[in-house]
Amino acid sequence: MSGSCEDDVVELIREALGARFGAGSPDAFALRDDAAVLGPPAVPAGAPLVASVDSVVEGVHVDLSVCTPGDAGWKALMGALSDLAAVGVSPLGALVALCVPGGAGEGTLALAVTGGVAEAAAAGGCPVVGGDVSEASQLVVAVTVFGTVRDDGPGPVPRSRAQAGDVVLLSGPCGASAAGLRELRAGAPGADGAGAHRRPVARLREGELARRAGVHAMIDVSDGLALDLHRLADASGVGFELDDVPVAPGATPEEALGGGEDYELVLAAGPGIVDALCIDFEAAGLRRPQRIGVISADPSRRVLRGKPLGRAGWQHRIG
Amino acid sequence: MSGSCEDDVVELIREALGARFGAGSPDAFALRDDAAVLGPPAVPAGAPLVASVDSVVEGVHVDLSVCTPGDAGWKALMGALSDLAAVGVSPLGALVALCVPGGAGEGTLALAVTGGVAEAAAAGGCPVVGGDVSEASQLVVAVTVFGTVRDDGPGPVPRSRAQAGDVVLLSGPCGASAAGLRELRAGAPGADGAGAHRRPVARLREGELARRAGVHAMIDVSDGLALDLHRLADASGVGFELDDVPVAPGATPEEALGGGEDYELVLAAGPGIVDALCIDFEAAGLRRPQRIGVISADPSRRVLRGKPLGRAGWQHRIG
Repeated sequence: MSGSCEDDVVELIREALGARFGAGSPDAFALRDDAAVLGPPAVPAGAPLVASVDSVVEGVHVDLSVCTPGDAGWKALMGALSDLAAVGVSPLGALVALCVPGGAGEGTLALAVTGGVAEAAAAGGCPVVGGDVSEASQLVVAVTVFGTVRDDGPGPVPRSRAQAGDVVLLSGPCGASAAGLRELRAGAPGADGAGAHRRPVARLREGELARRAGVHAMIDVSDGLALDLHRLADASGVGFELDDVPVAPGATPEEALGGGEDYELVLAAGPGIVDALCIDFEAAGLRRPQRIGVISADPSRRVLRGKPLGRAGWQHRIG
Repeated sequence: MSGSCEDDVVELIREALGARFGAGSPDAFALRDDAAVLGPPAVPAGAPLVASVDSVVEGVHVDLSVCTPGDAGWKALMGALSDLAAVGVSPLGALVALCVPGGAGEGTLALAVTGGVAEAAAAGGCPVVGGDVSEASQLVVAVTVFGTVRDDGPGPVPRSRAQAGDVVLLSGPCGASAAGLRELRAGAPGADGAGAHRRPVARLREGELARRAGVHAMIDVSDGLALDLHRLADASGVGFELDDVPVAPGATPEEALGGGEDYELVLAAGPGIVDALCIDFEAAGLRRPQRIGVISADPSRRVLRGKPLGRAGWQHRIG
């Protein structure tokens, strides 16, 4: 790739993605134009448009000594899709802003990252409709996804409407990604954890079912179960009392509470819908959600088995 | 801002943007949730959804010795809006992925960049509906915008449908941004050029009018008039014969051809609509487009005043 210029790299990426997604775009556009065009009708009449962006930065969100460039691409797209899952909507498309270090072999790096983006896009049913490639000193993959509601059920689920007395449910055990990173760095990866760390999966179907079932509030575990639960409680003006935290195989309880990037969903659901919700999940072939506690009316009450639960979790240090 | 964490920075940014845009979002979301919700109905029934992404990288797209962090934010959002202008659609909203170097004062940097993003968003009528903040070794601002067609006119205009015999029009003279950068670096900025470099403006109204008038193809001058015109010709399978290149005050002919970031629009229009198009522009208080040449059926013919025109322009070096 030495000596190639941006147009050449963009064309190679377009070809790599077009093999999967080209058929979905109006042919006059199809990843060649500056702007991508979806539909009409991309968004059903009267339906909301929902969008989110997530970034993966080399050395901050991804350790390239234990993950591949393709993993970085996968994580960026799945992280953004997990935000759509967290409000219960279906993906429509993704745009990728890719920054790669200049120098020999870096066109190859751009393609490798894009390969992981394309695999995640196929897994999540979310075509890549546009992108941008820049030179930078460090690998950065920023993915914007947009989606909508395709049914007559409730609208997108915010994190801010949990109510006192709601049951707190978790779509699956936490800590697998953090455990996988620990194992990878120790040079002894277990298959479960390594996969969970390198190729986490957004819970899109779970989020959609939970929205249709009428849950009050939802959030995805992206920065750690404890921290994300605090965020849901902050936004809703409530507290919580947890009696259990399911721990993924191979993970520690600390990893389950603070590890992040598990993409499991935390649901706050009225007690009256919990049984039906669990039946819906099982009927769809999904894991039965686990009841981990209840929402408290007291915003200052944030406990696990009666003891205060700190804001454990992973935040980028800024400033 | 020393010692602050991501949630604090995000909250400050939310407040800074919310003062302008909070009223437009459903209150349960309003920049607090992972995903942003627009509408319903964000997109008119049957209308296409159009999206684009543009990145500004410190030292690559913006020189922070002559531009402010706010300029970097402005340029990222305007660059993305210019892509919407180039297909003739109206903006609906923007999402901002911001990467800032860690360390003392960098929370302040994040806010300064966001200030410029907000100013560009207000100027372009494009609310910022979501975002993401990360730590990185270098300032990166990646902005995704989406838009739609709000009228019954033609759909988005591709770059790929220029036809032999079309008149090539330019919405205004080129080179002002490149001239401004040269003047800024020499320590003697002229007001016109410095403003054009630091705060370029997307030609959204021009693009919309051109679409409604029925132009065949359009592209914005983001990387240089010559290069972008070659791209339009490549995509359309045609050539061009230019007889004139309007040069902005203070710019050289080379800057007009190769400077980029002017955001003027290149239009390929059937001869029969040119007069009406010019009247439409003038009636709307816009500069009258200038005729600079014609489209040739021969894809290998790419000339300026009879001499071959190279692909002058600015490309990121990748690989």
